[in-house]
Amino acid sequence: MFRIGVDLGGTKIAVALVDENNNILDRLTTPTLPERGNDAVTADIASLVKRLCEKNKIDVKGEGFLGIAAPGAINSDTGYIERAHNLMMESYPMVDKVRELTGIKNILIENDANAAALGESVAGAAKGTACSVLITLGTGVGGGFIIDGKVFSGFNHTGGEFGHMVLTVGGRRCNCGRRGCWEAYSSATALVKRTNEAMEADPDSEMHKVAKEFGKVSGKTAFIAARRGDKSAEAVVDEYVTYLACGIVNVINLLQPEVLSLGGGISNEGDGLMIPLQKKIDEEVFIRGIGKSTEIRIAKLGNDAGIIGAANLK
Amino acid sequence: MFRIGVDLGGTKIAVALVDENNNILDRLTTPTLPERGNDAVTADIASLVKRLCEKNKIDVKGEGFLGIAAPGAINSDTGYIERAHNLMMESYPMVDKVRELTGIKNILIENDANAAALGESVAGAAKGTACSVLITLGTGVGGGFIIDGKVFSGFNHTGGEFGHMVLTVGGRRCNCGRRGCWEAYSSATALVKRTNEAMEADPDSEMHKVAKEFGKVSGKTAFIAARRGDKSAEAVVDEYVTYLACGIVNVINLLQPEVLSLGGGISNEGDGLMIPLQKKIDEEVFIRGIGKSTEIRIAKLGNDAGIIGAANLK
Repeated sequence: MFRIGVDLGGTKIAVALVDENNNILDRLTTPTLPERGNDAVTADIASLVKRLCEKNKIDVKGEGFLGIAAPGAINSDTGYIERAHNLMMESYPMVDKVRELTGIKNILIENDANAAALGESVAGAAKGTACSVLITLGTGVGGGFIIDGKVFSGFNHTGGEFGHMVLTVGGRRCNCGRRGCWEAYSSATALVKRTNEAMEADPDSEMHKVAKEFGKVSGKTAFIAARRGDKSAEAVVDEYVTYLACGIVNVINLLQPEVLSLGGGISNEGDGLMIPLQKKIDEEVFIRGIGKSTEIRIAKLGNDAGIIGAANLK
Repeated sequence: MFRIGVDLGGTKIAVALVDENNNILDRLTTPTLPERGNDAVTADIASLVKRLCEKNKIDVKGEGFLGIAAPGAINSDTGYIERAHNLMMESYPMVDKVRELTGIKNILIENDANAAALGESVAGAAKGTACSVLITLGTGVGGGFIIDGKVFSGFNHTGGEFGHMVLTVGGRRCNCGRRGCWEAYSSATALVKRTNEAMEADPDSEMHKVAKEFGKVSGKTAFIAARRGDKSAEAVVDEYVTYLACGIVNVINLLQPEVLSLGGGISNEGDGLMIPLQKKIDEEVFIRGIGKSTEIRIAKLGNDAGIIGAANLK
């Protein structure tokens, strides 16, 4: 029985053959180019799936499973992509269309952040747990929540919007319209913005040198300058860690997952992030559990989390 | 087959016989007096259970179920009350003890806030839903989360601490040690504190008259004075509703329950609370769902939610 995962993104479609141990055996990709229209994108998905099967001598009409990870509001019951701005899709019956074009009967679809959380739970940082959360620190703050080995996203499939939990009433403006969302403090975007502000306020900061060395201001700038002892950079990192810890403790106090994994570029900071973060979490968490506390880990699967999660939807 | 619910509180033990439609058929109560020692409390639970059965001509040795709702950190797997300050209990094997004293084999225990959420989900405001949340606005802000008709409280049974979600980093001090917790803004205790502050700041406020009429400052004082047009009271109510809405929207963005019920004394304010609250929630919620949004309702079962929930543990 074959298992195929599809990662449908705004810029790239990736299709991968996944074995029973969740190794990616083979993968094909193509640009999404959503402006061509929804059906053109879907046709590309189907043709990549067929080529992948041919190449690996798999009968696409045989017993198999196809899972799709896609951005936006996804109805995993009906198989519709309800709203995905960067795919230019609205109320689009993705599962039915792919089924029609490939002949594969067993197809499911899930939001990409939820699929990534499932990927980490079956094959990554939270492997072996029944209950875990993945928080991704990237352009935004995304995440997914796994209970009993399945995605939980509420009765209407739109839960798990961890980034849009307000941490400071009336705080920084978020793209969602609220003020003070976690995403407005802990995304890479927010960190870059805060770094730029701190650099403007302190022309002598080491952050200027770091930015020159790397050719730009990034989520790493403040972390590197802080390691070199720069006070302004330390303040940026400290504020970043404070808000990140606050959001994580909120999630723990509500959900007490066995493992909470951190993904996205900023999670690559390693100890420079994780040591002060764990310290703040330990200070703040409400109940330390009945002898057992949530473990904070760095996500393992990187960009493959979504595609591996997709292959494990059920 | 009989079903008995036990509500073990710091001041009172209540034991009730519950029928298949979740009506309470009969109930016995006694003061808890925890200072007598853990085993004395447990002996009283067992004797109330036996008296209740005798009185209702039920064979306590026959087929039946007993559920216990208790405050604090409860391990529902082992049946231990791990920590309950107001019961003066620590690592106490409540289920085994009650089983020994009553002869009832089928006994489960759950945290009282979680049991109340289950009660509302089987017989109250969230009846007929698979996924719901109960938020109780009382001395603190408590709550419980029901998925697929069962309590969810994380891998270590200590989740669902909704009141200890920070809404304002560095905000008001909470009893848990954090700053800015939901409980520090939306509990009845917090509302009374805020009302007192506003009364001190405005000696001409209608709130003084209201407090005199009712003989004390309570969670109702600001609501009543606001209805009479008092500006200072309106500001208190507006702030209260702002934080309550913020916390509720956070819960919705994360969990998207089908119904979120509000319990506790303040939920009795009715439209004076619910209309402005719903308005703020509608303005802030991240995604309105795929055609379906969380309904906000007032809890129905009052103080019986815990005992009915206890009888429905499984």
